[in-house]
Amino acid sequence: MSEKPLDVNDRRVPLIHALYENPMSGRDIETRSFEIIDQETGSHRFPPEQWHVVRRMLHTTADLGLMDAVKFSDDAIDAAVVALRYGSPIYADSNMIRTGISISRLRQVCPVYDADRIVCFVADPEVAIEAREKGLPRSLFAVRKARSVLHGGIALFGNAPVALMELNRMIMEDGIRPALVVAMPVGFVHVTESKDELMSLNVPHVAITGRRGGSPIAVSVVHALCSVAMERK
Amino acid sequence: MSEKPLDVNDRRVPLIHALYENPMSGRDIETRSFEIIDQETGSHRFPPEQWHVVRRMLHTTADLGLMDAVKFSDDAIDAAVVALRYGSPIYADSNMIRTGISISRLRQVCPVYDADRIVCFVADPEVAIEAREKGLPRSLFAVRKARSVLHGGIALFGNAPVALMELNRMIMEDGIRPALVVAMPVGFVHVTESKDELMSLNVPHVAITGRRGGSPIAVSVVHALCSVAMERK
Repeated sequence: MSEKPLDVNDRRVPLIHALYENPMSGRDIETRSFEIIDQETGSHRFPPEQWHVVRRMLHTTADLGLMDAVKFSDDAIDAAVVALRYGSPIYADSNMIRTGISISRLRQVCPVYDADRIVCFVADPEVAIEAREKGLPRSLFAVRKARSVLHGGIALFGNAPVALMELNRMIMEDGIRPALVVAMPVGFVHVTESKDELMSLNVPHVAITGRRGGSPIAVSVVHALCSVAMERK
Repeated sequence: MSEKPLDVNDRRVPLIHALYENPMSGRDIETRSFEIIDQETGSHRFPPEQWHVVRRMLHTTADLGLMDAVKFSDDAIDAAVVALRYGSPIYADSNMIRTGISISRLRQVCPVYDADRIVCFVADPEVAIEAREKGLPRSLFAVRKARSVLHGGIALFGNAPVALMELNRMIMEDGIRPALVVAMPVGFVHVTESKDELMSLNVPHVAITGRRGGSPIAVSVVHALCSVAMERK
């Protein structure tokens, strides 16, 4: 480790001073970010409301290449707007998603939303015991425990492909019908297949094909869908 | 929306049945994921402990291309191990990071860690008032409020470039010396510059150059550093 003190080798002006002199709020920065995304992406295949969602996904990842992997079922936006306005419960496959979702944005669409209306059972003690006994991932049993929420609810997957596969089974075998599935687990094992299976089912969905995904992207989809629901009013 | 019931058009066996028959635990799936990463990446420029961190970042994003953008200062791993063993407080620029970090992993390295030792002020009411008054992002004032944690602490940025720029200023002008900076804000405005500035300072760091980053990646770095600290014992 160098012992050189910073003040000897550094007489530069910190970059932040330029922002002090010409302040931009968080909202200003977001607006500028969307302008950059629009400039750099140019023409695309998405109708306006879908583009609203995709653009926010690109904003969250700063990876414009992700655009090609985003898939909507034809009924996804309509189904999402109906579900959010109804205050449908939300299932999240990670507590990071639960933390990331803005309750105040949900409440702008439907005042029934509160923190208890977003459920995640992945840290549930019963779920942990079952997973250990069966030698299977906790996320699988977390989804099973959420059965009543998943039927008619909004299901968010930004992490666990096995959880999505278990939901697929519940759709195929048990007649569970989520209002919307946001299918964005990430990783190398079971991930691509879990999304392909979901997309082959007759359920409203927004998905990212392939290995990519993540909790912040799933959160960004929810926030964008709230905006779409607000703008339709 | 189609009215066709699922049981008419779908006689396939759900994919999850294969996992029921040949169970893999979460740990098994993680091990298999790391094998795939090792196979697909082949040779690389990282020494073993740095690779341990990079591999977990790739696991979190499922994007092997990210590898080229990861930069370590020479002292990063040593500094991180010392800081974690000492129980240095952790600053997070998002509550998603705070939620994502496993306290039990931190406690394996140093039993002093608990949830209160990871701080995030981005949702702090005072911070919100200051941001509104000044027309600047909340993340900037959240970092200022964390001054006592940042001096000697582990600073995690997976979201807010303005927060990182403010930390850079505190390093350059105020003599604040974090034990380690994990510099992975994401986005289109101020992002690349904020990281380049940090990397030019004489502070231990792990960074992702360019626009990419994110809270789950910052979390993955902490978890990997905990493993490195455990394996050195």
